[in-house]
Amino acid sequence: MIVAPEEVRRRPVGVFDSGVGGLTVLHELLVRLPHEDYVYLADSARLPYGARRPEELQAFALEVAEELLLRGIKLLVVACNSATAAALPALQERLAQTTLAVEGLGVVQPAAVQAVAATRRGRVGVLGTPATVATGAYAAAIAATDPFVEVVSVACGDLALRIEADTIDTELVAAVRGYCAPLREAGVDTVILGCTHYPLVKPIIQRMLGPDVEIITSGAPLARQVEHVLGTRGLDRRDQDEGAYGFLCTGDPATFERQGTRFLQLPLGPVERVALEPARGERLVGSPA
Amino acid sequence: MIVAPEEVRRRPVGVFDSGVGGLTVLHELLVRLPHEDYVYLADSARLPYGARRPEELQAFALEVAEELLLRGIKLLVVACNSATAAALPALQERLAQTTLAVEGLGVVQPAAVQAVAATRRGRVGVLGTPATVATGAYAAAIAATDPFVEVVSVACGDLALRIEADTIDTELVAAVRGYCAPLREAGVDTVILGCTHYPLVKPIIQRMLGPDVEIITSGAPLARQVEHVLGTRGLDRRDQDEGAYGFLCTGDPATFERQGTRFLQLPLGPVERVALEPARGERLVGSPA
Repeated sequence: MIVAPEEVRRRPVGVFDSGVGGLTVLHELLVRLPHEDYVYLADSARLPYGARRPEELQAFALEVAEELLLRGIKLLVVACNSATAAALPALQERLAQTTLAVEGLGVVQPAAVQAVAATRRGRVGVLGTPATVATGAYAAAIAATDPFVEVVSVACGDLALRIEADTIDTELVAAVRGYCAPLREAGVDTVILGCTHYPLVKPIIQRMLGPDVEIITSGAPLARQVEHVLGTRGLDRRDQDEGAYGFLCTGDPATFERQGTRFLQLPLGPVERVALEPARGERLVGSPA
Repeated sequence: MIVAPEEVRRRPVGVFDSGVGGLTVLHELLVRLPHEDYVYLADSARLPYGARRPEELQAFALEVAEELLLRGIKLLVVACNSATAAALPALQERLAQTTLAVEGLGVVQPAAVQAVAATRRGRVGVLGTPATVATGAYAAAIAATDPFVEVVSVACGDLALRIEADTIDTELVAAVRGYCAPLREAGVDTVILGCTHYPLVKPIIQRMLGPDVEIITSGAPLARQVEHVLGTRGLDRRDQDEGAYGFLCTGDPATFERQGTRFLQLPLGPVERVALEPARGERLVGSPA
């Protein structure tokens, strides 16, 4: 089945994460590309992704992709550092088999490119979960962009959990101060927030690093990449001012709703529970029969 | 009494507002000038300032200034649009009489200048409380900076109250959509958030105005002005990395603490209750006897 381009253009952008963290990425998309429609899927029944093996994450990502393709997305955004690091190539390979050749974008590369463009002394810091830092995905993406940029990565233990706990206190500041100390010592002038939870404590991180350090989050450069992909393919919705957005989750919708607004900074609206099925290539919409 | 410059340099910057709104300004100061110490005074026993007559606001501002001068500030920041519009000149006149000639800065002019610098088509929007819009302070400050820039002001009824209520829902979005409609129709390319509460709904406002409209808040340009004042007078604390900050309020400290963290986005710490006295010139520290 070949779908008509106009129908494709009117489809939503799919965004996925294990939980609420990816909502900071959706936030940027909603603010920077307000004319698009979005469908966000949180695989919250299986979070945290940071504790999963790469093979598991690949299987999960393919299941999520299948669900979102069945719901007719025109582009897939992986708004999760762990899933991007472990599964983006496998996901892109699978998406390329669909007739529509839906593109899959991740959070790592856009931030790495922006950090390379921003650094003045060629020294970039990365704050991430232990799992993301262990994959070396940011260091690899930065090296692929500019092999002469030095990267200092810090695994931030339980910072994401502390942020979900929603208590801005001196303990949280002390934890952030500790994670920032190696970056200060290393004299980095640019720091990537390599976890989608961390933008919620960006003010604390900026205060710890000082005003001369530029902080890069994935949302803004990823939104530009989305804009480019949709624009060059004639798939953007510039004909409408304000698009719609909806939410799916595999876990408890009430929990997702309760935590989500703080990450999205926009009204969340209803959240629909969804059950994922094991990915089977032949069920992918638009894939060769 | 002449105070030694080194002692003056070590003094905190004083920041005042009627309530928690000014914390969005203190937020920018804490993030952009983390090396300074700050003392924030909320005149919460007499809020909202937006409902007060200009003569009252002048009297209140002079009382607050006296309290902060007694606590040894080196600079006074009026982080309140109503107080800036009604009382900044009177305040500056009074401060100039102190031996130290403490400077007083307000939130209106820095934002007006930045908006004039940012606009491409010479058409600037202002969102403010009915009281602030009625004073015409932003229109006057913009005209004084560039008389050829057109200003479209919108009085946003109960938006500040809605923001204090802390419910990000579709009703709030509908209210913001309504306030933004005249600015969209007028085709402004730059919009000043002329109330210190509004940065909390900046994402919603940006989504309503579209990504091509630049939103100006007072915090960032005011922080630059503070940096310039302190820098040119040798009063900055660049010798320390991270300063301290504390809070005073004339109303109920518990209420201020409960609401404050969301506006500050940093830990609030203890809040001390303070009683203001009617301003009497001779009690001003450093004023001629």
